[in-house]
Amino acid sequence: MNIEITGTGSYIPSHVESNEGFSGHEFLDTNGTRFESSNEIIIEKFKAITGIAERRYAKSHLNASDLAFFAAEKAIEDAGINPETLDYIIVANNFGDVKFGSCQSDMLPGLAARVKHSLRIKNPKCVAYDLIFGCPGWVEGVIQAQAYIKAGMAKKCLVIGAETLSRIIDKHDRDSMIYSDGAGAVVLELTNDEKNGILAHESATFAYDEAYYLFFGESYNKNLKDNTRYIKMHGRKIYEFAVTHVPQAMKNCLDKSGVSADEVKKIFIHQANEKMDEAIIKRFYRLYKKEVPEGIMPMNIHKMGNSSVATIPTLFDNVKRGQIENQEIHKGDVIIFASVGAGMNINAIVYKY
Amino acid sequence: MNIEITGTGSYIPSHVESNEGFSGHEFLDTNGTRFESSNEIIIEKFKAITGIAERRYAKSHLNASDLAFFAAEKAIEDAGINPETLDYIIVANNFGDVKFGSCQSDMLPGLAARVKHSLRIKNPKCVAYDLIFGCPGWVEGVIQAQAYIKAGMAKKCLVIGAETLSRIIDKHDRDSMIYSDGAGAVVLELTNDEKNGILAHESATFAYDEAYYLFFGESYNKNLKDNTRYIKMHGRKIYEFAVTHVPQAMKNCLDKSGVSADEVKKIFIHQANEKMDEAIIKRFYRLYKKEVPEGIMPMNIHKMGNSSVATIPTLFDNVKRGQIENQEIHKGDVIIFASVGAGMNINAIVYKY
Repeated sequence: MNIEITGTGSYIPSHVESNEGFSGHEFLDTNGTRFESSNEIIIEKFKAITGIAERRYAKSHLNASDLAFFAAEKAIEDAGINPETLDYIIVANNFGDVKFGSCQSDMLPGLAARVKHSLRIKNPKCVAYDLIFGCPGWVEGVIQAQAYIKAGMAKKCLVIGAETLSRIIDKHDRDSMIYSDGAGAVVLELTNDEKNGILAHESATFAYDEAYYLFFGESYNKNLKDNTRYIKMHGRKIYEFAVTHVPQAMKNCLDKSGVSADEVKKIFIHQANEKMDEAIIKRFYRLYKKEVPEGIMPMNIHKMGNSSVATIPTLFDNVKRGQIENQEIHKGDVIIFASVGAGMNINAIVYKY
Repeated sequence: MNIEITGTGSYIPSHVESNEGFSGHEFLDTNGTRFESSNEIIIEKFKAITGIAERRYAKSHLNASDLAFFAAEKAIEDAGINPETLDYIIVANNFGDVKFGSCQSDMLPGLAARVKHSLRIKNPKCVAYDLIFGCPGWVEGVIQAQAYIKAGMAKKCLVIGAETLSRIIDKHDRDSMIYSDGAGAVVLELTNDEKNGILAHESATFAYDEAYYLFFGESYNKNLKDNTRYIKMHGRKIYEFAVTHVPQAMKNCLDKSGVSADEVKKIFIHQANEKMDEAIIKRFYRLYKKEVPEGIMPMNIHKMGNSSVATIPTLFDNVKRGQIENQEIHKGDVIIFASVGAGMNINAIVYKY
């Protein structure tokens, strides 16, 4: 037996928000002081580091659970299964449904229940729950689905990552340019295929010193008196944390799988920041005393930004459907999924496609 | 092998909010109209149905994750384990940390990461995540812990339910009197004991017609223009749903366990509403053509109110520690945990103590 991804789907919001859209913003530092550089230079530097030229925002009438539903429908269609046969619907997210213009997170009911409702699934044995695990939530959802299948509690699981980060950003924070909206989904099934599927996983939470590297904080604009809080990060600390711990977690996972580094065909890494992702991959191969193979790391961050839990399943779906230039995967390819984010959490999966 | 609860703990906030505390509230119906009855009569009727005379509210400087940490510390102490040996920390909640006076849910980082941080656990292999599954979240967390242990992914798990519902209630809604704050926790461990531990579980999500029976809605006071949303419920529909589906889920679970109804010593049911809980138990025994045994159902709702995910682990801890009059459990007793709530979700566990 093994556990295979039998269907993928993603939803990419139609509204494109370009970097130019931020040129009129008043960017402030953590003390509330204006930067000396012009916005043009700030945006140029931002793009050079993160790789992000544009990002997608959900239309105002849509919420994260709607995006999740759209991605789920496609994954179910791709898998060719009857949705009534699903044993679990797991929705990884971090802020619930945040209505456009609101600062409240709505998780009553959970997003998974909303998706199940929208999918018109009647079967009560299909258990729908939400998972909060920072950006690595979708990868963790796959790991959890694997547990249910291994434990004999499930045969088919739908794992979704969905987020509308555009609704919880501080306009005065340069980091607001990173975040994006989107959703990606996969169907995982128990199969008789001995060779393919999930080969190994690795999962970790670093909360001793690192718990608040990503946090909920007030605007950098000290004149705002409404106490609304937004997604905030200690970028430098996160960068150093990620490049130190993610390569090692990926190596632990690959070594557990018994596959050699040379056999890895693609690495789907959380689209957090291009420079950081490149540094992670470089250090990963350095652990094996190897150079980074060309084209090993598909990226869509340039046009998609960082949609948290949605980046990996969206990117994987994009590559699978031939939507990323010069990137493809083939039956039998060994791939790695790896993520890092709030918690701080890190995880990885080695998967034979 | 089996999976046993080796430690329990709970945190009961010190502030007692009595029913009299609501006597000055302006209660309105869904249309925003004042009730004809006096508050005295409204409160009397409320108490007669729900059983709630008083409830606990967390002190203003404490958040749900603090309550969770206090309960966790006690459960770890009770289990006598080194917290560094925990493989998972699962925190069931529904609204994250809601600061006193704020309407925002803060789950960045997740509550489980905060608890891990407060417990000063260094081991990164201890994976900390949050689970959103309505009031049955804590029971579901136990079911998820069981999956990890069965799948060979864990040996020791900490499962916590924590909530500060007092911070998301509409003062103009009579249902606001139901909600309470609290936290309960257990340590689950893989043991060699063949006879004791989890015997069976049942889990279900009814989202076809029922998804929005509990929902996030605006105040009944139509004059408030701030769009803040609160916990809202269609009480009558929930009552009918619960008394129809919970007894059957409990029976399915008990029948799977192979234990007869006569052998059940205690039923720990989500403290939602005393009359509803009594009706559920009555119908459960009716499915076996039996009368409800005296003292089968410990209750603490009279003094504790409904603290969502926290009710069952708190009640269980209270009984275990001899804190509920005329209620005790003994080694070898078969007990049932059962819950129902937003989603709509239902679950049950048959457990040999």
